Amino acid sequence: MHMSRAQKIAKCTDTDAILIANGTSPFLDPVFWYVTEQTSGTFEGSMAIISKDGSLDVITGTLEGTTAKKGKGNVHVYSTRDERSQILMDVLKGCDRIGIRGGSVTHTVAEHIRKLTGAELVDVSEKISDVIMIKDAKEIAEIRKACAISSKVASNIPEMLRADATEKDMAWHIDSAMREQGGDGNAFETIVAFGKNSAEPHHRPTSYRIRKGDTALFDFGSKYGMYCSDLTRTVFFGEPDGILRRAYETVLKAKEAGMKEMYDGAPASNADLAARNIIDAGEFKGKFIHSFGHGIGMNIHEGPWASKNSADILRKGMVVSAEPGIYIPGIGGVRIEDTVLITKNGAEALTEFDERCTILR
Amino acid sequence: MHMSRAQKIAKCTDTDAILIANGTSPFLDPVFWYVTEQTSGTFEGSMAIISKDGSLDVITGTLEGTTAKKGKGNVHVYSTRDERSQILMDVLKGCDRIGIRGGSVTHTVAEHIRKLTGAELVDVSEKISDVIMIKDAKEIAEIRKACAISSKVASNIPEMLRADATEKDMAWHIDSAMREQGGDGNAFETIVAFGKNSAEPHHRPTSYRIRKGDTALFDFGSKYGMYCSDLTRTVFFGEPDGILRRAYETVLKAKEAGMKEMYDGAPASNADLAARNIIDAGEFKGKFIHSFGHGIGMNIHEGPWASKNSADILRKGMVVSAEPGIYIPGIGGVRIEDTVLITKNGAEALTEFDERCTILR
Repeated sequence: MHMSRAQKIAKCTDTDAILIANGTSPFLDPVFWYVTEQTSGTFEGSMAIISKDGSLDVITGTLEGTTAKKGKGNVHVYSTRDERSQILMDVLKGCDRIGIRGGSVTHTVAEHIRKLTGAELVDVSEKISDVIMIKDAKEIAEIRKACAISSKVASNIPEMLRADATEKDMAWHIDSAMREQGGDGNAFETIVAFGKNSAEPHHRPTSYRIRKGDTALFDFGSKYGMYCSDLTRTVFFGEPDGILRRAYETVLKAKEAGMKEMYDGAPASNADLAARNIIDAGEFKGKFIHSFGHGIGMNIHEGPWASKNSADILRKGMVVSAEPGIYIPGIGGVRIEDTVLITKNGAEALTEFDERCTILR
Repeated sequence: MHMSRAQKIAKCTDTDAILIANGTSPFLDPVFWYVTEQTSGTFEGSMAIISKDGSLDVITGTLEGTTAKKGKGNVHVYSTRDERSQILMDVLKGCDRIGIRGGSVTHTVAEHIRKLTGAELVDVSEKISDVIMIKDAKEIAEIRKACAISSKVASNIPEMLRADATEKDMAWHIDSAMREQGGDGNAFETIVAFGKNSAEPHHRPTSYRIRKGDTALFDFGSKYGMYCSDLTRTVFFGEPDGILRRAYETVLKAKEAGMKEMYDGAPASNADLAARNIIDAGEFKGKFIHSFGHGIGMNIHEGPWASKNSADILRKGMVVSAEPGIYIPGIGGVRIEDTVLITKNGAEALTEFDERCTILR
C-alpha cells in the first residue's frame, strides 16, 4: 500500500498529533514543504498538522490560501492571528501530547502552542528525521539531476578560472553556469576562496584577485526542483607550496577512506573517523576542523550527521556529503566533496569531476 | 560618544545578558551578524552574548574560529558540544535573567540554555527590534545601493520581456542583471508570475510561457553587502482585461495614499489602513490579501510591520516596503512596491521606476 508522507510520519511517533510550524523567513521548516508536497510559496506563520491516522491539515493566511490549495492536506485559511489560534485549537482538540520539531520551530511559536492548547510538547525531531532522511525514488531523481548540474560546472572550472578573476567574479560565473545547465537556483551561497582565504571553510567571496600559487576552492550546489546538491573542488593556480600539494593528496585519500565506510547499516561516525585518522596521522594533525559530512535533501544541512560523535546509522536511500578538508591558517585550505547516495553495499557518488590534483598553468 | 551596536542593545534592556543563538541553517539570526559586524561565515550553532555593560562575547566552533576573529567581540572557540556548554556557563555566570529573541531562536536551543544556566529567559525581541529597525548612515548607504541596483533592473523589464519568455527565464534574467549591476546576490528568491499565476502573491516561477493579455508581475531585490532591497513592478503583455487595468490604477493610488501616512512618529498601521480604504472602497473589496509593508534590513522581512493591527510606530531611519496589491483568482494580480526610507516629515522612495501603467505591444 502506498503511504503518504504524512502517514509515514504519523506512523513513526506515538503523540496525538504532530505540528510543523513556520515562523518568519528564514525560520521556515522544510518539512512543511515535504508533507504538503508544495513547490511554491513562502508560508510564513503557516502550519501543517499530522493526525494520528496520517491525515493532514494545513493552516495558512489569506496571502497564500490559493497556493496552499495546490498542495496536499485540508487547507484552512485565516485572516487574523485570532482566527489562526481558533483553527489551531479546533484541529488539535483533544490532543494531550503534541509532537514538534524542536530544532526547526522558534521558541515563541512553541510557547504559543503550549499555552494555547495546554498540551505537552514532545520533541519528535529524531523520529521525523528518520523518515525524511530516507529519500524515495522521486527525491533521488531530483537530487541526481541537481548533482549532474553541479558536476558539469565543476568540470568547467579550469576553463573558467582566468588570471584576473576575483572570488566574486567566479562565484557569479558558477551561479550562472548552474542556471544555464537547467538548475533552479543556488542550494546555498557559493563559496569561492583563493589563497589564504581558503583556510576559512565558510569564507564568503570577496574582491580578492587570484595570484600565482594560490589555492582556489569552490564549494557550491544547485537546486533542482526543491532538492539540493553539494560539491567542493579545489584546484591550484600555478605551482602551489609543497605543503598544499601534500594536503591535497591527503584529503583525497581521506575522502576515499571515509567513503569506504559508507553503506547501509554503518555508523555514520565511522566515515568521519576513517578520514580523520588519515589526516591526523601526519603533519596535518588537527587541521581537519569540521565533520566529514551531513545529510542533503530539501535542506542543504540535515541529518544524518557524519561526525565523530554522531549516533546516526547510515541507511539505504540516504544522501550524505563526503567532504574532508585540511586548513592551514595564513597559507590556504583544501577540501574535496562529493554528494553520495547510500546503497545496500556501499556509496554511490552522485557528483563527479576530475579529482586528481589540478595545477593550472 | 560612539556606541557599539552591542552597547546600543545592552542599553535597551534590563536583563543580566542578552543571548543571540544560531541553530542549523536556515535557523540563523541576522542579529548575530549585526552585532559581530561579520561579513562572512554561516555560524551554525554559534552564539553572541551581550553583557550589561555592552561587551560582546562570541562562541563558535573550530570550523569558523578564524572567520569569527575578523568580527567584533571576544571570540571563544569550541571543538565539542560539551566545550560549548562550558564556555557558555562561564560567560553567563551569575546571570539570573537572560534576554533572548524568541522568534529567532529555536525551541531546542532556548530549552538548552534554560536547563544549562537555570536562568529565567526573557523575550527581549521587541526591545532589540527597536534598536535594529533604526538604520545608521552606513546601513542606509548599503540599502540605497541595493535599491539603485534593483531599480535599474526594473526599468529594463519592458525590454527584457520577450514573446516566448517563461517565468523561470525572466527570473534568471533579473537575477543576472542585478549581479551585472554590482549586486551581491538575491535578497530573496525572485518572484515572476504571469497571467493568473500573479493572483498568488508568493508564486514561484514555473515554465509557463507568457501570453497576450497576461499580467507580468516581478518582485525582486538585490543584496548589497549584507543589506536587502525589495521592489515589485507589474506590467501588461498586450492589452489586458479591463478589470486588470482598473486594478492597476487602484493599486497605484493605494500606494500613494499609504506613503502619505509614512513619516517619523506615525503609527505603521495608518499606511495599511489608508491603502486598504482605497482598495476596499470599490469593486476590489477584500482583494488586498496581505499587509501594506514590512521592515527591510539584513533580513528581507523584519519589523516594523505596516499591517492594519500593528502597534509599531514609524521612526526616522526605518526602511519599510510599501506594497499594496489586488489579487483576482483565475484572472491575475497587480502589486506595486517601493522600498521606502522614513524621514522626519515623510517617506523617501529608495527604489525608482516608471510606475505608470505599462502595456507592452
